[in-house]
Amino acid sequence: MDEFQVIEEIFAPLAPAGAPAFGLSDDAAVYQPGAGRAMVITKDVMAAGVHFPADEDAGLVARKLLRVNLSDLAAMGAAPHGYLLGLALGSDTGSDTRIEWLRAFAAGLAQDQKTFAVALWGGDTVSRAGAGVGGLVLSLTAIGSVPGGLDSGEAGCLRRSGAKPGDLIFVSGSIGDGALGLKCVQGDLPADEFLMGRYRLPEPRVGLGLGLASPGLATSCIDVSDGLLADLGHLAAASGCGAEIERRSVPLSDAARNMLIADADLWPAILAGGDDYELLFTAPGEKRGAVMAAGKESGTPVTVIGRMTSAGAGVLLLDEKGNPVKVDGAGFQHHIG
Amino acid sequence: MDEFQVIEEIFAPLAPAGAPAFGLSDDAAVYQPGAGRAMVITKDVMAAGVHFPADEDAGLVARKLLRVNLSDLAAMGAAPHGYLLGLALGSDTGSDTRIEWLRAFAAGLAQDQKTFAVALWGGDTVSRAGAGVGGLVLSLTAIGSVPGGLDSGEAGCLRRSGAKPGDLIFVSGSIGDGALGLKCVQGDLPADEFLMGRYRLPEPRVGLGLGLASPGLATSCIDVSDGLLADLGHLAAASGCGAEIERRSVPLSDAARNMLIADADLWPAILAGGDDYELLFTAPGEKRGAVMAAGKESGTPVTVIGRMTSAGAGVLLLDEKGNPVKVDGAGFQHHIG
Repeated sequence: MDEFQVIEEIFAPLAPAGAPAFGLSDDAAVYQPGAGRAMVITKDVMAAGVHFPADEDAGLVARKLLRVNLSDLAAMGAAPHGYLLGLALGSDTGSDTRIEWLRAFAAGLAQDQKTFAVALWGGDTVSRAGAGVGGLVLSLTAIGSVPGGLDSGEAGCLRRSGAKPGDLIFVSGSIGDGALGLKCVQGDLPADEFLMGRYRLPEPRVGLGLGLASPGLATSCIDVSDGLLADLGHLAAASGCGAEIERRSVPLSDAARNMLIADADLWPAILAGGDDYELLFTAPGEKRGAVMAAGKESGTPVTVIGRMTSAGAGVLLLDEKGNPVKVDGAGFQHHIG
Repeated sequence: MDEFQVIEEIFAPLAPAGAPAFGLSDDAAVYQPGAGRAMVITKDVMAAGVHFPADEDAGLVARKLLRVNLSDLAAMGAAPHGYLLGLALGSDTGSDTRIEWLRAFAAGLAQDQKTFAVALWGGDTVSRAGAGVGGLVLSLTAIGSVPGGLDSGEAGCLRRSGAKPGDLIFVSGSIGDGALGLKCVQGDLPADEFLMGRYRLPEPRVGLGLGLASPGLATSCIDVSDGLLADLGHLAAASGCGAEIERRSVPLSDAARNMLIADADLWPAILAGGDDYELLFTAPGEKRGAVMAAGKESGTPVTVIGRMTSAGAGVLLLDEKGNPVKVDGAGFQHHIG
């Protein structure tokens, strides 16, 4: 199979025959957002050995790639529509192996396209001589939209920059599962299916993002990819605020809690490890009930973990006695090896 | 410098502080096309050793990456606005070397941002342990827009699919320079600065694409990246037509013509080599004058090289006597090595 056959047989079935994708038969995709809507566009790169093990299941690689990008759209409060795919494959893996890998990869995409109501709009594939499966590099550009024009402030989207001192800090789902799951995958912790699943297949909080953006509930939002503390730092910096969160309020899964009971030294991995893809956001106290209702509506657990403070106060993690705790390793670099 | 410093110091200066890019400080870009305009989105991947030599000047790598994507937008008749960048860098090249490379890369982008009136809207950078300069993989998503809604046919854009039997076939600029330039770079032909320059830094025909699309002059269009004959085949297939072009009409640069005089065996490289990034398009005979005027207006040479035929006739290259010529190697795979 040459490049054109791969596109036609494996990828074109994932794309609409008409606009935006034209069955992948044109030079570019064409998309017109609904009247008054703005486009939201994000792009992430993933590499074997950095973001997933080189021998990871191809379908899971595809779904994680799509989901980490959808998580960025969710953090903006955008409805996802489509994506463009870039694949740099090793060419010394043997043609049959490569085609089999691509078919499994496409099957993973097909599955998540249904889950998230998105479609393939375009992309590009290159083969690199001498780069095997370990040299796999993928990129994905996800496109969504938000209501409201740019003229009315900043479109109807969530930003990192709108938090005010006194706003409550919320987080969706549970924190630390991805980082602990990676440790399980690497053999540094005993295997735990739940945690490994959370690492291998994150859950982008698309419904929650929409529920927070449309009625203007949240004042700021970010998705937790670098680690709870690092991303709280990004949000606080963009908003010109400080922030304080209580460690005991950070929502943990049963699996993470059990690991912590056995080894309290796992706290830094949980708080600074990253790969959570949960939404971290702020809202004024009087919106607390409406935020909780938006969580319930979207089937997403939401927890209050702290509050925004004034700029000079910095970003603090408080222990059970209300004293600041220093955490090593804030600012995760995503490296597996 | 960590990932965040690289973004802030090297890439953020290339991005607007407000929308769409928010100074690269948010999770995604937000862009609202003008009233009634549709977005055009394309994505290409380039890899060291495949699309450029591993030791290529970083600024030229950046500019080629941007330009090959702008060429796709030009083929749709779109006005370019912005781009998202994905970089997978080797991490064993040494920090200083990497930062120096990134600065030169960004300087190349800055230069072409001015030339083409585009800006950086977002992206992602990853470092891969064990992958050196030769492991460099880049992707770029370019975003433009065209007038006209999707309701009115297929937006105001050029497509591959609108050619009719009897339409004239046009091509911009000169053909074969990129493929011959690659042979010069590889040492298979004597060094020629003009040809090597054409290979290393293509000229996307943005102005011509706009001139052909807006008044509905061209019935179909594609950019020549896979090779003149292969891309003519794509256009003919999408349009449900055959096509015939005259070899003697294919526009050649003086440098290419001189190479051909010395060695007629270079014809296949010229006609099937690819990396031209010229526009190949069709228009009815009565629009010939208007097409030539659009070429002149945009400062782009335009040449008639043949005509579309009925579907059963196939895609033919005719020699000086009007006899079909078979060309080896149609369907270039972009491999350097």
